[in-house]
Amino acid sequence: MFAPLQNDTFLRACLRQATDHTPVWLMRQAGRYLPEYKATRARAGSFMGLATNTDYATEVTLQPLERYPLDAAILFSDILTVPDAMGLGLSFQLGEGPRFATPVRDEAAVNRLEVPDMAKLRYVFDAVTSIRKALNGRVPLIGFSGSPWTLACYMVEGAGSDDYRLVKTMLYQRPDLMHKMLAINADSVAAYLNAQIEAGAQAAMIFDSWGGVLADAAFQEFSLAYTQRVLAQLKREHEGVVIPRLVFTKGGGLWLDAMGQLDCEVLGLDWTVNLARARAQVGEQGPNAKALQGNLDPNVLFANPAQIEAEAIKVLDSFGRPHTDRSTPGASHIFNLGHGISQHTPPENVEVLVRAVHAHSRKMRSVAV
Amino acid sequence: MFAPLQNDTFLRACLRQATDHTPVWLMRQAGRYLPEYKATRARAGSFMGLATNTDYATEVTLQPLERYPLDAAILFSDILTVPDAMGLGLSFQLGEGPRFATPVRDEAAVNRLEVPDMAKLRYVFDAVTSIRKALNGRVPLIGFSGSPWTLACYMVEGAGSDDYRLVKTMLYQRPDLMHKMLAINADSVAAYLNAQIEAGAQAAMIFDSWGGVLADAAFQEFSLAYTQRVLAQLKREHEGVVIPRLVFTKGGGLWLDAMGQLDCEVLGLDWTVNLARARAQVGEQGPNAKALQGNLDPNVLFANPAQIEAEAIKVLDSFGRPHTDRSTPGASHIFNLGHGISQHTPPENVEVLVRAVHAHSRKMRSVAV
Repeated sequence: MFAPLQNDTFLRACLRQATDHTPVWLMRQAGRYLPEYKATRARAGSFMGLATNTDYATEVTLQPLERYPLDAAILFSDILTVPDAMGLGLSFQLGEGPRFATPVRDEAAVNRLEVPDMAKLRYVFDAVTSIRKALNGRVPLIGFSGSPWTLACYMVEGAGSDDYRLVKTMLYQRPDLMHKMLAINADSVAAYLNAQIEAGAQAAMIFDSWGGVLADAAFQEFSLAYTQRVLAQLKREHEGVVIPRLVFTKGGGLWLDAMGQLDCEVLGLDWTVNLARARAQVGEQGPNAKALQGNLDPNVLFANPAQIEAEAIKVLDSFGRPHTDRSTPGASHIFNLGHGISQHTPPENVEVLVRAVHAHSRKMRSVAV
Repeated sequence: MFAPLQNDTFLRACLRQATDHTPVWLMRQAGRYLPEYKATRARAGSFMGLATNTDYATEVTLQPLERYPLDAAILFSDILTVPDAMGLGLSFQLGEGPRFATPVRDEAAVNRLEVPDMAKLRYVFDAVTSIRKALNGRVPLIGFSGSPWTLACYMVEGAGSDDYRLVKTMLYQRPDLMHKMLAINADSVAAYLNAQIEAGAQAAMIFDSWGGVLADAAFQEFSLAYTQRVLAQLKREHEGVVIPRLVFTKGGGLWLDAMGQLDCEVLGLDWTVNLARARAQVGEQGPNAKALQGNLDPNVLFANPAQIEAEAIKVLDSFGRPHTDRSTPGASHIFNLGHGISQHTPPENVEVLVRAVHAHSRKMRSVAV
């Protein structure tokens, strides 16, 4: 059904297999910093108009690949499609973030929640298939979802928040309700990601964007446990090919020991984490060894080309020389930002970054140990 | 000049001396969650009207002590008084945060910066003396300042920020300018805190509210080094009494090893940090051993009384039984929130918290080891 894959560097790195260079892709790489994205979005009329239209979603997903030699594509969509399908009424106000018409703030609202009919998310799966076809085997396609906790934050707050007061009030006051909502979210996210895999996604990433706002112990109980509940339900392979699973918790660096126990292949890290230490903690050896993804500060892309190169090299050198033995898995790094790319990024600076990662990471591998 | 201190629990705990209970105070304890604060602020007309008037500042600083048996008072002021004195024009728009009329965004603006004449901050030092007198020895008075990096964030951004794009652009593109600004900030903060100590402050706290947004390595270079530059200049004692120095980096838990090397007595921790692990890392023994302060999630105060008590006990038990030998210093904990108290907090819940900390921490000490 789909063309054979020409560049499997990203998938190999996810599975901790040796590669010729360090693969690179960027969170939110299809986005507002690209003038061609803004043009498509203007035609679509709105963000959801863009995300729900197969042709538009395909077009914007491929835009960054036309410009840069990136090693992966990621589905263009939003992390809040699942609660929208639950009937919460997602909308995007211009200049503001997402907003739910009917947030989940009491027992009655939690009791009304259920795993949504995946038919309501058909537009996402159609986009996955369309993008996979359009990629024509150039690079693999990553599917994704928000984590159960991150979805709960938006579902309770109804919008972004500075202090997470409403969702944490429910957590501390009614942990029973919070657990109930998180279980439903986890099962919904698992069904959603599995349907993306069946539609053509070659890797599945869980964005735990707000895990880092939780207190120690609360993170493990209310975020990590439900990320694990998703992972446990995900398809390990599709049509004979392994589907790597990636988990990114923004602000989760303190909990790397616990995250290292997750049943997934890759951990995403933000820029506060020291990659050398993280590699020693979770990336190196043993049954729980994982590939690491990250972690350049997106604001580096506002510096000059020579400075961008130097900072990219610092990140690569901080992880250190990856494993190069093709006969066995080992330490493996996927280059990324530590968070989504800023809409204000000069597009030409992304070119500098991607080329620097490829050039320096090839050089690292050629140096004798 | 000042009345003798009746409750020295906080100061003893800062110096890692044994105490009968774990002292407790709350960041932003004089604030909008108290109706009496709102009444005074209404009379003052504006936030700066409140902060710059000695009588009002004294009144609001003492308000939480009238309600709760807190173990310390903290000067009512703002972290941005120093850049205001540098001529940047601080104002507070209603419903928004602070704003500077003339942010520091280029080389010329950095070159104009200098350590401000401390006479411009006289209103702060007058408030310190007035509060110390009004306290009449009940509990010690903590003076404070923003950290050099946190001040720089506001000075460059001109206001709060979601992404710190402008200040980080300067950091990555013109590290020379950033270092110059941070050196001036550090020397200004040191002079400011020393003047507070001379005016009557019995401890000095540095709020590195935005240290946690920096990348690993950048934190050490652009925040921690300048916090250390402040600490190195601070008076160690005043009129024969030791002045403890406290440093709080929000989101700094990943860098506890580095922060453990700071020349200060106390490290403040936010709720993401595991206190038992932090105690083992920096709080226990050796020349760099420090008292630890923190770290309840302020949102716990929206739960029910029994839940608030249970969460307070969890924090105390996570730190574990403090050192109780009066003949030598040892592991020591100061209870606090992991961030400022929310303006929406029900005041009666603070009473529950403070009493729970006192009661349980006395009990912990009475248990045989």
